[in-house]
Amino acid sequence: MSVNDRSEAALNNKVKNVMISRSKWHVPASIVSKRTVNPIRETVFKMTAKPNPDKELISLSLGDPTIFGNFKIHENCIDAVIKQLQSHKANGYPPAFGCEEARKALAKKFSTEDAPLTSRDIVIGSGASDALNLAIGALCNEGQNILLPRPGFSIYQTISQSKGIECRYYNLLPDRNWEIDLDQLVTLIDDKTACIIINNPSNPCGSNFSRHHLESIIQVCETYKLVIISDEIYEDMVFGSEKFYPIASLTKSVPILKVSGLAKRYLVPGWRVGWVIIYDQNGILDEIRNALLSLSNIILGANSLVQYSIPDIIFNTPDEFYQDTNNQLERNASISANILSKIRGLHVIVPQGAMYMMVGINVEEFKDIKDDLEFTEKLLEEESVMCLPGRCFHYPNYIRIVIAPHPEKLEEAYDRIREFCIRHYI
Amino acid sequence: MSVNDRSEAALNNKVKNVMISRSKWHVPASIVSKRTVNPIRETVFKMTAKPNPDKELISLSLGDPTIFGNFKIHENCIDAVIKQLQSHKANGYPPAFGCEEARKALAKKFSTEDAPLTSRDIVIGSGASDALNLAIGALCNEGQNILLPRPGFSIYQTISQSKGIECRYYNLLPDRNWEIDLDQLVTLIDDKTACIIINNPSNPCGSNFSRHHLESIIQVCETYKLVIISDEIYEDMVFGSEKFYPIASLTKSVPILKVSGLAKRYLVPGWRVGWVIIYDQNGILDEIRNALLSLSNIILGANSLVQYSIPDIIFNTPDEFYQDTNNQLERNASISANILSKIRGLHVIVPQGAMYMMVGINVEEFKDIKDDLEFTEKLLEEESVMCLPGRCFHYPNYIRIVIAPHPEKLEEAYDRIREFCIRHYI
Ligand SMILES: Cc1ncc(COP(=O)(O)O)c(C=O)c1O
Ligand SMILES: Cc1ncc(COP(=O)(O)O)c(C=O)c1O
Repeated sequence: MSVNDRSEAALNNKVKNVMISRSKWHVPASIVSKRTVNPIRETVFKMTAKPNPDKELISLSLGDPTIFGNFKIHENCIDAVIKQLQSHKANGYPPAFGCEEARKALAKKFSTEDAPLTSRDIVIGSGASDALNLAIGALCNEGQNILLPRPGFSIYQTISQSKGIECRYYNLLPDRNWEIDLDQLVTLIDDKTACIIINNPSNPCGSNFSRHHLESIIQVCETYKLVIISDEIYEDMVFGSEKFYPIASLTKSVPILKVSGLAKRYLVPGWRVGWVIIYDQNGILDEIRNALLSLSNIILGANSLVQYSIPDIIFNTPDEFYQDTNNQLERNASISANILSKIRGLHVIVPQGAMYMMVGINVEEFKDIKDDLEFTEKLLEEESVMCLPGRCFHYPNYIRIVIAPHPEKLEEAYDRIREFCIRHYI
Repeated sequence: MSVNDRSEAALNNKVKNVMISRSKWHVPASIVSKRTVNPIRETVFKMTAKPNPDKELISLSLGDPTIFGNFKIHENCIDAVIKQLQSHKANGYPPAFGCEEARKALAKKFSTEDAPLTSRDIVIGSGASDALNLAIGALCNEGQNILLPRPGFSIYQTISQSKGIECRYYNLLPDRNWEIDLDQLVTLIDDKTACIIINNPSNPCGSNFSRHHLESIIQVCETYKLVIISDEIYEDMVFGSEKFYPIASLTKSVPILKVSGLAKRYLVPGWRVGWVIIYDQNGILDEIRNALLSLSNIILGANSLVQYSIPDIIFNTPDEFYQDTNNQLERNASISANILSKIRGLHVIVPQGAMYMMVGINVEEFKDIKDDLEFTEKLLEEESVMCLPGRCFHYPNYIRIVIAPHPEKLEEAYDRIREFCIRHYI
């Protein structure tokens, strides 16, 4: 055989092998998609329980304040979007990282005396979820680890695991209003720790950290040179004498990526506009800034109509609107805590903010309920009340209650929970 | 030392090492973010050329039909969104994979006789870009390869490289109206080939495949068991006697993920709503279906106001609207081809659809222009006409022209290009 013949034979052979290896359809899901797991969806999906057909369903499980009818979006937000629609000027592509008008407005709103911002410090994403995806994606490599709260919001895990980042959980202490167990936290840190996510006010805890506690967190991050992703989507949603402190307002040295969005404050989670704010006065995050811009090229950003409405929305929605939302939530929190704390077998931690409450289940007091999952399943089957089991947030033997429904609905739900408990005590 | 002392010493040592390794701020960008490159952004970013200050800038570079003022969104689309805004019912979270109303409407619209669909076959994403991200992410693993068109739209590469998928380019043949070189295509396939992306009608080519050519492509994919991602975002935007065939209408055996969206047909790219349609009559894509749902949990989907407007938008926008868009584009295509084909040194391939045209540069005919990049830079500096160099689409020595501006603007731009060429001939 000549050299040519031989290489042709080799080529033919290669073609033949490819043909054989591809002779049947076989289309498996990607590895990444298999590890992209939403614990809430998984848990609810696997629940075989059905609501009691004789009782109207009361859902205390969805973190969506719009579905109950008692929280209404402010007219100003509607008018802002209609104005953009009618202008015919907000239909084109904004830059992938967000339009200048919105970023400028957000920079103005979220500047603090010690942490001034410009539009360059803002990257807009499609919801806080996308903003988290950008922030985690910019900071972390596969094989590194990330510190997440336990109990904590499940999307942190969904995003991190999807990227092959190891999730390490720091404990929140129920007896200290869900403050971080900093002693345990530091034992998790090693040279592969890429960053920490904190979430304040918290989903699912409804907690709000004190200034002192935030300063202690900053101290640890300063010592270990840990960048903070601070999910503050429930900022300012705090009750009574509580005060919310943006963590970036308390440090000049620890760099912070603050994540937030329109979803909760303006009661428009479906609008899908969120943002990352880069607080970095010492140039520590220069590479991360570029990384966020690069990553925004994948989906090309958030809805333009809402983006261009941001200046109107954030500057012209009257303060009474937030105040009213908070007042309603505070009232609901107090109703919830009052009623539930009187039910034997339940252990209530009074919420300080957001729209959630964690309730502990003392399983020893029940004759036929072994854990949070069984509690929520049986409660749904018998009483048509739907809560999420704590395991959705890595916290067994608690349940999470969304306190956003009408007070009368909450009261009815809690009546049913009381009946349910009575039926199941030892 | 006792065992306890020893393990405590080891622990202290570990802590000390961690402290040392983390004693300075060092926050590099992630590997993934570094390989997430947008070739258009890179090229334009690196261009040092500035427009000629004495001449008004004419941009033929942005694939956004809304910026020139001649293409107006239809009132029906505006009214549809206003209706949703005023209903107060479209502000909450739709399912991450899209609301049932929209998926049902899309299933109805895109069913063909041989390829019937239900809402289960539709996954809504935040723009066609997100839909592509979901489809590629569901099908491909890091280390596999994906077949992409050359010349082709750059986001395929941005997304694939970001995920560590090797990009292999199949050639489109300018002399055959940009049909695929199928002989060359098959040499790229091996057992690590996860799928092929085709884009018809094409950005940047403005081509529209014949039925016969689409059938040949299907034949190859059948032989090699290649799943097709078909980017049909310019569907139906074809000129004269051209007919557009959705590739899924031509096969019952090759599974297709069709990607499209509202952006181009309805002239609302900023609204960021696109979709993946799963055409799979033989259950070959069962795993992929789940994978798409899992991956949609990362950013939780597209804007709710637009999603709920989809039935109105796709069923109630009158046909004359599309016809008018196409007529304008067709007229612009013919003006562009007529004028530019008479300029020596340029080589025109007449567009059959979409809103782009590729123009070859015979560099041998120019005295001081060595390639497409130099052509576009000098053209911008001297004549304030902005085009994209072919290298943005992996196709050197061509330029891409967006044919969406006003005809008078196009004519002025082409006058300037003629002057420019005359000045630079050998
Ligand atoms: C703590 C927390 N962060 C982020 C999000 C996601 O926000 P978005 O809807 O803007 O993606 C939620 C939603 O419930 C949340 O509770
Ligand atoms: C071929 C092609 N596919 C996809 C897209 C992205 O579409 P979307 O704006 O819906 O993300 C574009 C945008 O220009 C395109 O030209």
